[in-house]
Amino acid sequence: MAYRSGRHFLQVPGPTNIPDRVLRALSAPTMDHRGPEFARLTGEVLGGLRRVFRCSGPVLVYPSSGTGAWEAALVNTLSPGDRVLMFETGHFATLWCGVARRLGLEVEFVPGDWRHGVDPEVVRWRLSRDRRGEIKAVAVVHNETSTGCTSRIAEIREAIDGAGHPALFLVDVISSLGSIDYRHDEWGVDVAVGCSQKGLLLPPGLGLNALGERALEASREARLPRSYWDWRPMLESNAGGYFPYTPPTNLLYGLREALGMLFEEGLENVFARHRRHAEATRRAVRAWGLEVLCLEPEEYSASLTAVLMPEGHDADELRRVVLEEFNMSLGAGLGKLAGRVFRIGHLGDLGDLMLVGALSGVEMGLSLAGVPHCRGGVAAAMEYLTGTVRAGGERVLVSGG
Amino acid sequence: MAYRSGRHFLQVPGPTNIPDRVLRALSAPTMDHRGPEFARLTGEVLGGLRRVFRCSGPVLVYPSSGTGAWEAALVNTLSPGDRVLMFETGHFATLWCGVARRLGLEVEFVPGDWRHGVDPEVVRWRLSRDRRGEIKAVAVVHNETSTGCTSRIAEIREAIDGAGHPALFLVDVISSLGSIDYRHDEWGVDVAVGCSQKGLLLPPGLGLNALGERALEASREARLPRSYWDWRPMLESNAGGYFPYTPPTNLLYGLREALGMLFEEGLENVFARHRRHAEATRRAVRAWGLEVLCLEPEEYSASLTAVLMPEGHDADELRRVVLEEFNMSLGAGLGKLAGRVFRIGHLGDLGDLMLVGALSGVEMGLSLAGVPHCRGGVAAAMEYLTGTVRAGGERVLVSGG
Amino acid sequence: MAYRSGRHFLQVPGPTNIPDRVLRALSAPTMDHRGPEFARLTGEVLGGLRRVFRCSGPVLVYPSSGTGAWEAALVNTLSPGDRVLMFETGHFATLWCGVARRLGLEVEFVPGDWRHGVDPEVVRWRLSRDRRGEIKAVAVVHNETSTGCTSRIAEIREAIDGAGHPALFLVDVISSLGSIDYRHDEWGVDVAVGCSQKGLLLPPGLGLNALGERALEASREARLPRSYWDWRPMLESNAGGYFPYTPPTNLLYGLREALGMLFEEGLENVFARHRRHAEATRRAVRAWGLEVLCLEPEEYSASLTAVLMPEGHDADELRRVVLEEFNMSLGAGLGKLAGRVFRIGHLGDLGDLMLVGALSGVEMGLSLAGVPHCRGGVAAAMEYLTGTVRAGGERVLVSGG
Amino acid sequence: MAYRSGRHFLQVPGPTNIPDRVLRALSAPTMDHRGPEFARLTGEVLGGLRRVFRCSGPVLVYPSSGTGAWEAALVNTLSPGDRVLMFETGHFATLWCGVARRLGLEVEFVPGDWRHGVDPEVVRWRLSRDRRGEIKAVAVVHNETSTGCTSRIAEIREAIDGAGHPALFLVDVISSLGSIDYRHDEWGVDVAVGCSQKGLLLPPGLGLNALGERALEASREARLPRSYWDWRPMLESNAGGYFPYTPPTNLLYGLREALGMLFEEGLENVFARHRRHAEATRRAVRAWGLEVLCLEPEEYSASLTAVLMPEGHDADELRRVVLEEFNMSLGAGLGKLAGRVFRIGHLGDLGDLMLVGALSGVEMGLSLAGVPHCRGGVAAAMEYLTGTVRAGGERVLVSGG
Repeated sequence: MAYRSGRHFLQVPGPTNIPDRVLRALSAPTMDHRGPEFARLTGEVLGGLRRVFRCSGPVLVYPSSGTGAWEAALVNTLSPGDRVLMFETGHFATLWCGVARRLGLEVEFVPGDWRHGVDPEVVRWRLSRDRRGEIKAVAVVHNETSTGCTSRIAEIREAIDGAGHPALFLVDVISSLGSIDYRHDEWGVDVAVGCSQKGLLLPPGLGLNALGERALEASREARLPRSYWDWRPMLESNAGGYFPYTPPTNLLYGLREALGMLFEEGLENVFARHRRHAEATRRAVRAWGLEVLCLEPEEYSASLTAVLMPEGHDADELRRVVLEEFNMSLGAGLGKLAGRVFRIGHLGDLGDLMLVGALSGVEMGLSLAGVPHCRGGVAAAMEYLTGTVRAGGERVLVSGG
Repeated sequence: MAYRSGRHFLQVPGPTNIPDRVLRALSAPTMDHRGPEFARLTGEVLGGLRRVFRCSGPVLVYPSSGTGAWEAALVNTLSPGDRVLMFETGHFATLWCGVARRLGLEVEFVPGDWRHGVDPEVVRWRLSRDRRGEIKAVAVVHNETSTGCTSRIAEIREAIDGAGHPALFLVDVISSLGSIDYRHDEWGVDVAVGCSQKGLLLPPGLGLNALGERALEASREARLPRSYWDWRPMLESNAGGYFPYTPPTNLLYGLREALGMLFEEGLENVFARHRRHAEATRRAVRAWGLEVLCLEPEEYSASLTAVLMPEGHDADELRRVVLEEFNMSLGAGLGKLAGRVFRIGHLGDLGDLMLVGALSGVEMGLSLAGVPHCRGGVAAAMEYLTGTVRAGGERVLVSGG
Repeated sequence: MAYRSGRHFLQVPGPTNIPDRVLRALSAPTMDHRGPEFARLTGEVLGGLRRVFRCSGPVLVYPSSGTGAWEAALVNTLSPGDRVLMFETGHFATLWCGVARRLGLEVEFVPGDWRHGVDPEVVRWRLSRDRRGEIKAVAVVHNETSTGCTSRIAEIREAIDGAGHPALFLVDVISSLGSIDYRHDEWGVDVAVGCSQKGLLLPPGLGLNALGERALEASREARLPRSYWDWRPMLESNAGGYFPYTPPTNLLYGLREALGMLFEEGLENVFARHRRHAEATRRAVRAWGLEVLCLEPEEYSASLTAVLMPEGHDADELRRVVLEEFNMSLGAGLGKLAGRVFRIGHLGDLGDLMLVGALSGVEMGLSLAGVPHCRGGVAAAMEYLTGTVRAGGERVLVSGG
Repeated sequence: MAYRSGRHFLQVPGPTNIPDRVLRALSAPTMDHRGPEFARLTGEVLGGLRRVFRCSGPVLVYPSSGTGAWEAALVNTLSPGDRVLMFETGHFATLWCGVARRLGLEVEFVPGDWRHGVDPEVVRWRLSRDRRGEIKAVAVVHNETSTGCTSRIAEIREAIDGAGHPALFLVDVISSLGSIDYRHDEWGVDVAVGCSQKGLLLPPGLGLNALGERALEASREARLPRSYWDWRPMLESNAGGYFPYTPPTNLLYGLREALGMLFEEGLENVFARHRRHAEATRRAVRAWGLEVLCLEPEEYSASLTAVLMPEGHDADELRRVVLEEFNMSLGAGLGKLAGRVFRIGHLGDLGDLMLVGALSGVEMGLSLAGVPHCRGGVAAAMEYLTGTVRAGGERVLVSGG
């Protein structure tokens, strides 16, 4: 295939644009994973991850996809036939439910419309009725990558507590970690499930579990068969700076660099940037006369925006046109949203001009694909961005913007 | 820590020295794993892997360590309580046995002295006595990375056939693939288990399963719980060039480059090179007056050589001296060999001068660590190498060498 | 300084955005510049450069800036006191004039307004009056990087021929090569002067001379002192694949890759792309109500656009705002244009979305800097780009765009 | 050509093995050379270079080879017809002499045998006789890369002073800088000439001039034509952190990293390492029964060792065999030493095991090429290295070595 000049715009909601610094870090020679230098690396990345998760307990790193980290969270805390309360917030929640069922768990899967996060009231109501404590865990996706709806984790925690229920609280932070504020300890999450290729600015290949005290306790009694995902040997080896099996060294080099970049920018600034880019994107969508999939403003995702296509128009055809003509990848509609939505990822290592470039690709693509729309989405985004630039590290409103 | 000038010599038996070309390939920007370009990449790497495994069936690539690929081989073919015949050839065979037991399998673990491969006669004898076909699988490590002893896979296959036994044949080729001749189809192996960080010239992070027809059949009946490792969704997605979960894109870039390099050199040449370097290493060991751990010449590993320390001398102290003074990592004795052996990896991307450099580090380290030995190991290796150089692509003996 | 998320937009008219492929190629280990592999590299890059220059004679590569290649063109063809006809088309023409004078040449510098290219009629008129043939060379800048005005090289050639004058024709193609059509042989240029960091997609560090037959003849008589820039030892060494002094190996690796990319895209496609991006940029400028510096549409540069600031507004203040708020570098006004213009580079490895991103940075910067302007520049550019996308390698007009 | 496994051993005396860290630094995206970040980079690298040169005056960096820096030293300080005293210490001194003559200087070239450095007594004697002060400069090569002989710069300085002569003192430190102790200010050198691809651990592409006060004065009167090499605009621009023409940005990234590595190791440690590797190399040469070209132990080079071939044996044939069979590049005999010597570079980023590997390639190559020699060179080097390892940053003698 002939060379397409210019950078590819990777605007799927993960993997995200890997910063050059991270790509270069990835290409350092692999080192001995049993030597003293490796132990220092382990210490640095595990310490940095704790800062990102805001947790005081251990964070575990698996050579795996995020899917694997879902499995790890389940097999370490639950036993065959245990009941888990899950919520159909979208495609990924549905996949996680499937994992749980295949492992022999009993999932109670609360239906949803794929346009909202989890309703904390439903959690409270359901747990309140579970007098016998049959529900062993509540599992929620913080940011549904398929829909662009977040769930309010702190409020769900309150709901569990309000119901006085002892269920473990498992949270998928795959596409929120490093992009959207997440507070493991403060929100009382027992296991958080993450991965490398979203807000952590890395290629795919690392699955993460952040553990709370109650999860560690539960893992002592849990009876699902486990070997690869078993926390115990991992915790033991990590304590000395090592791993129970050969760790993915080069991704850890990249992780060290990526964590450094997040801390240089400042996590609060990172989150504010994502919120601002998300708002600019939604303004573009509305100016186009299109509909943001997420119906609840409080639950808008800062990582991605899913956009509904007008009736009779195929999102995949739009995506094909945008890829071919403008060298940009957009996220597809997944599961029952296939063809009906496209997703704009605005997470990871992104700047204002990259975002406007991406939105212009959508706007021009809508024209080329013959999708009815108003122009002016890019203009609306620019107006918002201009009015909210930072100066000297502080956000200022520029009146003349 | 102050900078140590010059390249680190990574002479553990994996991870191996990653060629620069592969490191650069790793650092290409991550692409959309659902786009058309990715499908081409998948096709290329899976096709190339089949050539390396010499198999006509599918090869599956997991984001995992080799340990994970062990687990995948078991959970896809066996059911709770199934009996597996395994052999204590060393540390890694013992670990694999542990994985099987943790997953709920019944392992019959034939004891060994860690200085030999699997005896095909024992296989024949044991299977012949299994009149009721209780043994569902025979699992063997092709090249024991902890001992430097190989097992004769073709002969074990004959033993299984000789016993007329239907057990599946599972083989760990983790440290043989790409370094030592392995013939999946010809030797009738049902599942081979590999990984990225040895002869495939990559960083850690990929686990591999090569599947035979009978393994695929078995997977339809197998009842161990499986989700992440399940072959079925992987086979389905791979058919179109995709993966059921986000694949480790950048390692796949590296894999494409590494496969290209192996084919440029020619697999036969690659194997011959490993054999030659192994022989040079053993000549050095003998010249030092030390003992090669492996007792059976037919079973010498071409990937690594484990060397016994003289009584009263600690291998780890030698390794520490070599690391500090000569910037070289050697493999430790593992499990019950801890402190008693050190291992010299001579696999992966290695040339004659790198090998001599590595052996000189051992020889000088023996002096500094006060280990009784004769000098002349390096000289013996050089003599052998000089006598067996290639000229014009053909190996020639140089009389004046 | 804290990390600024996202890619820097390097929109100065050179150095340009280096493609990742080229950056990776640059980082290959340096090789022996006297070995056989190096000779192959030399052959490849010199052959590729001839294709880009469209010349059949030699192209020479100096470890130098483009400034050095100016000097090389002069010292190899001229003698102390020789008269050279040059034209004040802008800052770089003025600098080249200064080089010539410092070397002891007599420059006749035709004044200009920095808003036009060279007038071929002036060339014809002046040479026609030079009855005694005192003018030894005519030196012209093809694309004035300081103004965004090109000169019509083919017409100037005709003017020289029309005057029947034997002067050598020296052309600076520094910011046109690889971006704007240039035909060395067809246009009868005697020496062309280029460099690496513009359309050739490389970092700075290589100066280029493309030589014609008459230039080689002239070099035999030329008497300016020369050593480093002397063509003779370079031609001799290059013939065998080598250089008379240590060449900048890693930049040559990059050059090989960059040439490959230009040929993959196709030079005609590369030029068409630059013209299209330049037109989109000018439409944005006009929509802002600002003025393109270049007054002659036939002479518009496809590499860059210089934009006049409204009276009383400082271009450098705009550039400062754009750099700080939007992480984009724009070109400064140079020489007598300092503060009065800013320059948008749209050359090198650029795609539509990168261009729109860059233009959005200008438009938002105009707002923030309080520069009077109309919005709608980005919209105008998008409209043009949408109407002129390529499909299947052919440019098509999309009516509904 | 088929892939040769393992790293190439680049043992020419420059370019040297570029450390991975530097190669990665080289591949960072090119930045705007007129922006504030660039000014910081300039300040860092020029400051670091002053530390390496041990000079308090300015160091200038040209996009050029070392040859260009020779020219810069001459054209900035001398006038047409000026007399320069130079010494035929080898091929590079002869080339520098040629540069001077081509530029119109009158060189008095003191003959030499290519086996010694410059004799300070000859300097004193000649200058003492120059009553009329016709000699304007004395130009000496610190480390003759073609012979492996150094000249005693401090003693030559004393000789100049002893003669009470005002000549400028120009010193080529191309292959000594960063490898062999050099003290610009202390030794009263007026201009030092360096480049990037030797002890500075970089690819070729940077020429360096370190200036003393008297050289700056001389440059005000010097009348050789100069433009590219002119110090004045360089000094002016550098003062603000910029360059008068586009600087080779990516090499400056590499330079920043390389300087950091030299300072991490400590310059004194760097020099001690080079001396130790040189001595190990000479011991190998003597054990082979071959002759080191340099006849004066006080003048042995720590950067490289030139080795004389036995009568009737061609060094280039040996080099060809070593390249083909062992993937190692050795330095050729240059000029009148062509075919008669080969050169082993042991400068730059080198460790003990790399050195032994390189020496083993020579020893095995001697066998294969049928060159009469004794074995045992590698053994002799190892013995020396073992006896002189560092422990805890301090060199210690190990008795049992």
